Amino acid sequence: MTIKSFIPPKRTLMGPGPSDVSERVLQALARPTIGHLDPSFVGMMDEMKSLLQYAFQTGNDLTFPVSAPGSAGMETCFVNLVEPGDKVIVCQNGVFGGRMKENVERCGGVPIMVEDAWGEVVDPNKLEAALKANPDAKVVAFVHAETSTGVQSDAKTLTELAHQHDCLVIVDAVTSLGGTPIKVDEWQIDAIYSGTQKCLSAPPGLSPVSFSARAADVIKSRKSKIQSWFLDLSLVMGYWGGGAKRAYHHTAPINNLYGLHEALVILQEEGLENAWARHAFYHQALRAGLEAMGIRFLVKEAHRLPQLNAVTVPDGVDEAAVRQTLLQDYGLEIGAGLGALAGKVWRIGLMGHACNENNVLYCLEALDKVLGKMNAPIKAGTAVVAAQEVLAKQAV
Amino acid sequence: MTIKSFIPPKRTLMGPGPSDVSERVLQALARPTIGHLDPSFVGMMDEMKSLLQYAFQTGNDLTFPVSAPGSAGMETCFVNLVEPGDKVIVCQNGVFGGRMKENVERCGGVPIMVEDAWGEVVDPNKLEAALKANPDAKVVAFVHAETSTGVQSDAKTLTELAHQHDCLVIVDAVTSLGGTPIKVDEWQIDAIYSGTQKCLSAPPGLSPVSFSARAADVIKSRKSKIQSWFLDLSLVMGYWGGGAKRAYHHTAPINNLYGLHEALVILQEEGLENAWARHAFYHQALRAGLEAMGIRFLVKEAHRLPQLNAVTVPDGVDEAAVRQTLLQDYGLEIGAGLGALAGKVWRIGLMGHACNENNVLYCLEALDKVLGKMNAPIKAGTAVVAAQEVLAKQAV
Repeated sequence: MTIKSFIPPKRTLMGPGPSDVSERVLQALARPTIGHLDPSFVGMMDEMKSLLQYAFQTGNDLTFPVSAPGSAGMETCFVNLVEPGDKVIVCQNGVFGGRMKENVERCGGVPIMVEDAWGEVVDPNKLEAALKANPDAKVVAFVHAETSTGVQSDAKTLTELAHQHDCLVIVDAVTSLGGTPIKVDEWQIDAIYSGTQKCLSAPPGLSPVSFSARAADVIKSRKSKIQSWFLDLSLVMGYWGGGAKRAYHHTAPINNLYGLHEALVILQEEGLENAWARHAFYHQALRAGLEAMGIRFLVKEAHRLPQLNAVTVPDGVDEAAVRQTLLQDYGLEIGAGLGALAGKVWRIGLMGHACNENNVLYCLEALDKVLGKMNAPIKAGTAVVAAQEVLAKQAV
Repeated sequence: MTIKSFIPPKRTLMGPGPSDVSERVLQALARPTIGHLDPSFVGMMDEMKSLLQYAFQTGNDLTFPVSAPGSAGMETCFVNLVEPGDKVIVCQNGVFGGRMKENVERCGGVPIMVEDAWGEVVDPNKLEAALKANPDAKVVAFVHAETSTGVQSDAKTLTELAHQHDCLVIVDAVTSLGGTPIKVDEWQIDAIYSGTQKCLSAPPGLSPVSFSARAADVIKSRKSKIQSWFLDLSLVMGYWGGGAKRAYHHTAPINNLYGLHEALVILQEEGLENAWARHAFYHQALRAGLEAMGIRFLVKEAHRLPQLNAVTVPDGVDEAAVRQTLLQDYGLEIGAGLGALAGKVWRIGLMGHACNENNVLYCLEALDKVLGKMNAPIKAGTAVVAAQEVLAKQAV
């Protein structure tokens, strides 16, 4: 056995994440590792908190990146807020609502499912009915931006309903943070988690979370011990919230945090509203191109996530062969369908650093050529022109 | 608020970890992010498994890096192998045995503690007595290399005893992997976890683990669901063990994995035995210098970890002021005491890339000068010469 250094191929990442990471963020990753208790590192952590508070639009003190990917951020919310026997209303309209249900069960909680079709938003009426039928529910959990379908639910309305029935809310914002509006304080979200590898365009491996004072109080007044030591916020708070007297809990992923810090500095430089507008704008260009080709969106227009475009595979097309050709011939990654949508849709991401004019045109041209060669039922040669018409309208 | 890019200071990391990361590994971190299901990435994962099997000296199929720091590797072992009501004998001789106890309790297990003084090895006789007194125990857990004290216990003997009483073993090898011999197959260890930021000199954020076939069988025949979704090996195996048909579980920390891969390639190039010998050799040089100064080791000679030197703070010395001066004036990080040893010891690491002649001499010179200025009760001006005498004997 002699294994050599791994040199990854250059890709254009337009799947459901990870998204392309900018050279600035990659270079930040390569800065010298320092100790996790170094005063200089501690200063960086304080900045990280401010930057994440900005991204989440919150003043929540308990705002930090969990030292593991988004799934661990999800688990952090559930293990800290759900105790054995607690009723949790889980709204499911895709893969990630199902994962929430798994989390509730593993905490000993009782999930009450509110189901909507994949590709539809969470229906507030169904949630309200579930709240009325379960006056003893403690938590409502839903996915703001379903990565498996590209649909965006109305987090503000769902949160208001939950609060009217005295429930806390847990929100999955893995794919929305930095790409579409999230206003944690204005919407009064109690617990929220996200990922770094979507619209923030940092490498995967960290999960930004934020907890309201109300959620922190619930954690402090738990009857049972939190089942995870690694994700126990009463311990983690001593490290991320301790100011000068930070207590050692675990060794933070130093270099990954450099990368996230740089990605958040870039977001701050652009401005959150500008980032949202950019995602919306390039989505319109991509959409024009796809529709000109005759490719249809899975999700109704009003509910689409600009950063994740789930489109139906044209009839008779071998979707896996298309993705393979895009990867091999164009170095372009787009996503397959997940779960019930496997084989039926593609998921085209326009996230963070990858959400730009070049990528829109490159993706449309590549799809046009690959599908054209396969004699797929599309209008070949129309996509790029249609997108360029939208792009020409760009005010900036 | 305007936050700028974070430029860390250049440090020499000679604490209990993270250790200095080489330029080669830092550059690997900065390679372009690709998708976690990219065929090219999947090939890298296969290599990673081989490289970790080499480092652990095992053929275990279930060998991979958990996507989070060492504490999560510990939790992976416990949540998968311990079910509610299971008796687990936990040997404690420092901080990390205490963390194991926490893990057992949070899994609903019943910890039976075998206590030894901090700085002493785990006593096999005490373990044997506990095994005899608890014939229904299912698991024995101990720390091979206690990062809080610098002591190395006899993993082979402890594992044999556990097996004689039909118990599985869980071994903490966070600080030992790559620095001192670990032979997972020869010693028949059932479950082991480590970290990347110690003797492998990759950044923190991943936890290499390995499970024997026997341990995998125990996981497969569990009566209860694993309490953590993120760390559930029956799910993770589908991703790391799935070969060509890998199932999506969570998004792996891509760039961190590039770094670990490169660090393991470096280990393979040097050779595991050579790496162990290098740690032993520079430890002797550091030791000669420290002893010449009059600084005493916490741990008996036969049980010392070469890569983590816990030494007692000379009488009357403000240990925190010494560390602060080393950091400010020399950019040198050494570790403080943890838990019961806080304020009483320093922990000087010689781990991985940081275990070299320059660092030994730099650390001794810096300590000598800082302690000398403080009029500490040491023999000033002797340390470097004493270390050089040992270094001159180097055969290579």
